[in-house]
Amino acid sequence: MQEKIKVGIVGYGNLGKGVRLAIKQNPDLELVAVFTRRAANSINIEDEQVKVLHVDQAKDYVKEIDVMILCGGSATDLPQQGPHFAALFNTVDSFDTHAKIPEYYAAVHKAASEHNKTSAISIGWDPGLFSLTRMLAQAVLPEGKDYTFWGPGVSQGHSDAIRRIPGVKGGVQYTLPVSEVIQRIRQGETPELTTREKHLRDCYVVAEEGADKEQIAQSIKTMPNYFADYETKVTFITEQELREQHSRLPHGGFVLRSGKTGANKENSHIIEFSLKLASNPEFTASVLVAYARAVYRLNKEGQYGAKTVFDIPFGYLSPKSAAELRQELL
Amino acid sequence: MQEKIKVGIVGYGNLGKGVRLAIKQNPDLELVAVFTRRAANSINIEDEQVKVLHVDQAKDYVKEIDVMILCGGSATDLPQQGPHFAALFNTVDSFDTHAKIPEYYAAVHKAASEHNKTSAISIGWDPGLFSLTRMLAQAVLPEGKDYTFWGPGVSQGHSDAIRRIPGVKGGVQYTLPVSEVIQRIRQGETPELTTREKHLRDCYVVAEEGADKEQIAQSIKTMPNYFADYETKVTFITEQELREQHSRLPHGGFVLRSGKTGANKENSHIIEFSLKLASNPEFTASVLVAYARAVYRLNKEGQYGAKTVFDIPFGYLSPKSAAELRQELL
Repeated sequence: MQEKIKVGIVGYGNLGKGVRLAIKQNPDLELVAVFTRRAANSINIEDEQVKVLHVDQAKDYVKEIDVMILCGGSATDLPQQGPHFAALFNTVDSFDTHAKIPEYYAAVHKAASEHNKTSAISIGWDPGLFSLTRMLAQAVLPEGKDYTFWGPGVSQGHSDAIRRIPGVKGGVQYTLPVSEVIQRIRQGETPELTTREKHLRDCYVVAEEGADKEQIAQSIKTMPNYFADYETKVTFITEQELREQHSRLPHGGFVLRSGKTGANKENSHIIEFSLKLASNPEFTASVLVAYARAVYRLNKEGQYGAKTVFDIPFGYLSPKSAAELRQELL
Repeated sequence: MQEKIKVGIVGYGNLGKGVRLAIKQNPDLELVAVFTRRAANSINIEDEQVKVLHVDQAKDYVKEIDVMILCGGSATDLPQQGPHFAALFNTVDSFDTHAKIPEYYAAVHKAASEHNKTSAISIGWDPGLFSLTRMLAQAVLPEGKDYTFWGPGVSQGHSDAIRRIPGVKGGVQYTLPVSEVIQRIRQGETPELTTREKHLRDCYVVAEEGADKEQIAQSIKTMPNYFADYETKVTFITEQELREQHSRLPHGGFVLRSGKTGANKENSHIIEFSLKLASNPEFTASVLVAYARAVYRLNKEGQYGAKTVFDIPFGYLSPKSAAELRQELL
């Protein structure tokens, strides 16, 4: 029997929990330990084989863990943790601050290369699978235009913004793609669109008792940057409705490219990739776990340093051998 | 200025013509020569820089051509041409006889490896981009079910079958995916479906003068293997309508995977990739040309032998550098 790939998790929020569940769906992977900054005994994992340890103990596990999956946030956790862990372990992370990717890549690449480790950075669906589709579609149809739509899905930032309004007890914001616009693009049109022309904002809000709902709705709809420039809908609901109907974190989106070929550019082609996800963190976690397998293999082959989705052949993500893939999936 | 990648084409049917047009859309590539089994002077290419030569002359161009794109058919051309040219050039082909891929891979791999060449085999959209999606989706969502639908698009084999019926002057057959079934899968259902439950057959037929149309329609609808088990529609049209409205070769299709995650598999996810192509040969050609760029680079790096879409990182398909891709597309 083949040895299992031994995985560790750093950070046990929604994403870390999703990684733990995703590992169970992959028989060639095994979770060794979860590392947290919280008190280890505050986390209860029903799987008794899984150790819960303080993040400072991770360095004692360099021989027991093949790949460490970093589940911290991009704002403050990963800029520090990414390079730190890349010097000790093969890693996978979902760093998603687009503007800072080159800088982050450089830091992780240096740490990983110097210690013969392999790190897959910015893995997930956007950045990640959506980036792959944009790149592929541009390479195949160089004369064209592409579009990314997000949603329907919960935007954490916009939900937080709603909850900061006085008189608001709770709330959630869904970003919705404008389906009429997607239809036009599917028909071959290539309109110029801003993000706000492509998306609507749908808010579900619980008001404090006695609060002025009209005032709250007004405050949301006129909030600069977040809502003012969008078509925004506000619906008031009860606390129970919020809990029962809006506690999941669905998300998804669409990448479309419309391009032309032919002597007179007379032939139009549409490439479309879409995701409809009941749980954003669980799906993202599933992508991270597939890339953990890839990172393990790349490292075994001596391919060290930081890698992105653009650098890693798809075959490395699959538990199947290259010969099986050619026979069964090509 | 960077040197252009010099490309040759073997075989100048619809696919070869598409490759010539696609190369013009990629400024880093340059077409050197077209090789044909026909009399070279029977082919007229408006581009005067492009030589048209007999296929036997190809061996004299090993120093002038970086990548040879093989545009022959999978039934008889490629099994012979693939290994032959892989010993002389880096190659790209669209070999699509699924059952024979392992055997074809072995022959091309041997020839290419022995001569330090790199060959991308079975490139296009299916096999090709659809295979990539199936593999990726299975790796990310190991517990699930995937579906491939083809069309709307012209099936060459079924069109030929119609044209062989006595009394038929011309005709074309479109394969249509059953959109109600796609809708059910998008909603999270995972039905068991045969190919015939997923597709309809839509035929446009020109009858000879005086031919019995009812008899023709009956012959089509009851034809074993091709039509008998499908819902088949037959419409009679004029020769002019056939020429004016049915001379293009559109195609496309859908790959969907429905999968579940979560402690109790309570979260459903849908991954969908689709293509809507006005010209099947021109789009396939565009994919081949992007992979020609990849093959050239892999060879420069010393990565010899046969490769499939599973083996080649996406980044190699793009004219952009890895740093540009990270900055602009991740």
